[in-house]
Amino acid sequence: MSDGEVLSENPIALQTIRDPATTKDHETIPKWKKVAARRRQEINSKIPAEYLLSPTLLKPTNVSKLVETCGLLTARELSIVRSSAVKLLESVHNRNFTAVEATTAFCKSAAIAHQATNCLALVMFEEALVAAAELDHYMELTGKPKGPLHGLSISVKEHVYLAGTPATSGFVAWADDVSPADSLIVRVLRDAGAVFHVKTTNPQGLMALETSSKLYGTTMNPYNRNLTPGGSSGGESALIAMRGSLLGIGTDIGGSIRVPAAFCGLYGLKPSVARLPHGGLSGAHGGMENIIGCVGPLATCIEDMRLFCDVVLSAKPWLNEPSLVELPWKRSIETPKTLNIGVMWDDGVVQPHPPITRALSETVSSLRKAGHFITFLKPTLHRELTDCINKMYLLDAGQEYIDILNAGEETATPLMQWIIDGSENKTHTMAESWKLNGLRNELQIAYAAQWNEAGIDALLCPTNPSVASAHGESTYWGYSSAFNILDYSAAVFPVSSVQENDTLAHYPRSKPVMGKEDARFNTYFGEHGTHKYRDAPVSLQLVTRRYREEALLGMLERLVADLHPPKAET
Amino acid sequence: MSDGEVLSENPIALQTIRDPATTKDHETIPKWKKVAARRRQEINSKIPAEYLLSPTLLKPTNVSKLVETCGLLTARELSIVRSSAVKLLESVHNRNFTAVEATTAFCKSAAIAHQATNCLALVMFEEALVAAAELDHYMELTGKPKGPLHGLSISVKEHVYLAGTPATSGFVAWADDVSPADSLIVRVLRDAGAVFHVKTTNPQGLMALETSSKLYGTTMNPYNRNLTPGGSSGGESALIAMRGSLLGIGTDIGGSIRVPAAFCGLYGLKPSVARLPHGGLSGAHGGMENIIGCVGPLATCIEDMRLFCDVVLSAKPWLNEPSLVELPWKRSIETPKTLNIGVMWDDGVVQPHPPITRALSETVSSLRKAGHFITFLKPTLHRELTDCINKMYLLDAGQEYIDILNAGEETATPLMQWIIDGSENKTHTMAESWKLNGLRNELQIAYAAQWNEAGIDALLCPTNPSVASAHGESTYWGYSSAFNILDYSAAVFPVSSVQENDTLAHYPRSKPVMGKEDARFNTYFGEHGTHKYRDAPVSLQLVTRRYREEALLGMLERLVADLHPPKAET
Repeated sequence: MSDGEVLSENPIALQTIRDPATTKDHETIPKWKKVAARRRQEINSKIPAEYLLSPTLLKPTNVSKLVETCGLLTARELSIVRSSAVKLLESVHNRNFTAVEATTAFCKSAAIAHQATNCLALVMFEEALVAAAELDHYMELTGKPKGPLHGLSISVKEHVYLAGTPATSGFVAWADDVSPADSLIVRVLRDAGAVFHVKTTNPQGLMALETSSKLYGTTMNPYNRNLTPGGSSGGESALIAMRGSLLGIGTDIGGSIRVPAAFCGLYGLKPSVARLPHGGLSGAHGGMENIIGCVGPLATCIEDMRLFCDVVLSAKPWLNEPSLVELPWKRSIETPKTLNIGVMWDDGVVQPHPPITRALSETVSSLRKAGHFITFLKPTLHRELTDCINKMYLLDAGQEYIDILNAGEETATPLMQWIIDGSENKTHTMAESWKLNGLRNELQIAYAAQWNEAGIDALLCPTNPSVASAHGESTYWGYSSAFNILDYSAAVFPVSSVQENDTLAHYPRSKPVMGKEDARFNTYFGEHGTHKYRDAPVSLQLVTRRYREEALLGMLERLVADLHPPKAET
Repeated sequence: MSDGEVLSENPIALQTIRDPATTKDHETIPKWKKVAARRRQEINSKIPAEYLLSPTLLKPTNVSKLVETCGLLTARELSIVRSSAVKLLESVHNRNFTAVEATTAFCKSAAIAHQATNCLALVMFEEALVAAAELDHYMELTGKPKGPLHGLSISVKEHVYLAGTPATSGFVAWADDVSPADSLIVRVLRDAGAVFHVKTTNPQGLMALETSSKLYGTTMNPYNRNLTPGGSSGGESALIAMRGSLLGIGTDIGGSIRVPAAFCGLYGLKPSVARLPHGGLSGAHGGMENIIGCVGPLATCIEDMRLFCDVVLSAKPWLNEPSLVELPWKRSIETPKTLNIGVMWDDGVVQPHPPITRALSETVSSLRKAGHFITFLKPTLHRELTDCINKMYLLDAGQEYIDILNAGEETATPLMQWIIDGSENKTHTMAESWKLNGLRNELQIAYAAQWNEAGIDALLCPTNPSVASAHGESTYWGYSSAFNILDYSAAVFPVSSVQENDTLAHYPRSKPVMGKEDARFNTYFGEHGTHKYRDAPVSLQLVTRRYREEALLGMLERLVADLHPPKAET
């Protein structure tokens, strides 16, 4: 937890700052606290009283089933939030559910998720229900849906522009920056019939694999609230894991879609840069292009990620955002029955924790049994990739962050401070930044050569050395950021959860090849990992070359089906 | 002419520097002169004595027909160099010509072109003939061509890496930098059966729309040697205009394919960045990505540009150069019979000279007659586009250029000095360069919005305000560089040549809308334009959105056919 916020019984209370106006010494209260108190009050006040849960329900460490068990949702509403987006849309299009009914269900589950995990940065239930009613009216009048997403609630990461709402990137200084217009991704989804019921938290400055800010407080992992849901799309992952939404808009420049999806047992897709619309997002370093972020979906299944991409690309966004490449979504991709899968046990820098390596080992066995070819790859380039991208993130030595923090009269969160203090940080000249680009290009070419040599269709590897980290612990990005600097398409998927025998004694490789002295490996052992990370999902990452999102999802579908073959009829 | 080189009768003599070793005062001769004398001697010594022309033949200002008239080529050889690459390849594949015969013809015409225009930076006739003989042997053994370019001579711009040859970018300091390996574009073409007989001149530092360097001297326009063939691919344009090659590898970051092609009456294609292989080129500012250059063909016809793209993309270069987008060449593109063509008379910054506007006016009339829809566009964004890209070219205020010039103990050519002195030049911080990127992105979005609003298929406009400039005169790039900053696909094509009545009195619009006081407009009138620019080709530019190279060439083919309809049978 950051900044001396004390855990109380109801997480909304936890993350609410006592109204400074009611305190005697409000003159001495720092500005950030006043601003944060107001913003949190705005959020929490929009949760209808009838959606508030009793503190008892909010006590457990694992709240992942709370939507199912708390009794707020009707059986019909539960069937809505348990569905996939694709199936739910079929039901709405077939008029089994109205848009208002579907939206109501997600408003309820989002309210529950927020009370349990502090995942919301904006509550728009009223506006969503009005929009849903209009969609129902449209359907009644015309007999057809407004678009392929007619009536689907989609959650929006906070820094993505949605007209008339704040997009702060977790900065106090930007707390009242109201977006003048929708970002292109929001506009396209809205035009397709999507309903927006919430915006979700992101960390101060976005550059963290956790989700904590002075403005919004700390978001928790629904499987174990002592752990982070990941970041920077951690409001999304906490929300979707609790079925407060089935599909969310995330962004990723170093792992910010994949790590939260992995930490919360979800599916997440980081496409290559310039595939999906990226225009209209707040954030520091606007115009920085040494490394470029991207927009992508977090979801509960593969078919919903595909739906997201298909709908967005059907709108031909490259006509309005010319930095995008004109690559329509390919609907018919043939996935071979047997694949050549490269496997990377570790990246040669930080040793994965036992549950990750155990799950990867089990997955490899299953895939071999299913007939796939496995090639183990040596991670000879990953240290250089990680070093290079770490330098690129802060070419101005963090000066813009410092300026924005100062403007908001807030201090850095511990993870932001860690970034700013990073040994890689120095003020680069243009010529130095060009050299880094040159190095990046050389590494990309060398990696492609290794890939060609290995002849693999996809690469299977960890998403992070850890399952969901304890709060404040996420300081290694290399497993995810390597595929940002390479700009490869990458998706994460759940395969397991932490088990009792995920100990060093049962470490599934002959020995950890490195990292025994590494604090980032030892976070697992300092406090008995299987206890510390109890119930945390275990996920893996599947990676392809650039712009192969269709092939990636096709292969992922094949592999997941082979990992969970349908049971034989009895 | 640069640096006090005096015109003598034989241009090879002109561009040869007297051997410093034979002069008494060679101690005082600057280093650059010694290096340049050696390099030019190396080039000229590789021209077989029997290919040297009598000084009388080299007297005319217009030498464009010299290959036809000088008597060095046999009738069969003339039919080879008069062909298109596509037709020639058919003949070689059908064994009407051997590869050696075809290569011999191009060695002869290239030798003539060099004597007339000083267009070569490297002569590889011997190597080319050996390679051609191997191809003939392959054909004899297997009965089939080695690849789709079997036996075709392709010329290579000097700074493109070709294993074992220098790639200097026109810098004395790099005079002996021998490329360790082929660039990807050369490797792909070589694998397809191409033969490399020459490398062609480019200007000092590449950043000029003319082709003059201390190292190689000045390249001249074959239609009028008082004019430049353009730059920076000006060795290519002079060579191909004289049929010393039918297809050449150019590069373009501000007009360096299109302007030389336009100045020499050729076809030239600047694809969008990351479409064709760009890896393995020498040049300053490696890793600079605010604006990125690209590789493209210069040719004598549209079908040869298409051949170039098709062959290169068939090799799947994105597998080896991962910065490329995986966009295979689309062979079947439907071009509508009638097109919506936007027309931009001028860019609102520099007024085109009379022959350009006259030719554009005639072209518009012809296209209307042929049934195309014409929409005139106001150039409201071009000044900002030009200002922005001009800042981006030298974000280090030219420091790297200055360092390289100093290392070679050479001074800047006048056009290089003009670039370095440019008022836009200042040393940018990272944050300032990010702001420029942001501005560039906004301009791209605004331009796309105008394009969408106009509903056009392509834009027709000048390539440069001038036809081929007099030497030292090319100081405006906006008509070409606008489509680098936009990253649109753009091609140039010849439509006319300077005519007697191309005067201000006959200016085809009611009046020049601007530029009457502009020195760049008045270069035409200071010395009686129709005389000064006699015989210069007049070309226009056709532009499409990004990554629409197939559509662009399809539309260009349709428009050119409509401009030159086949004569009715009599």
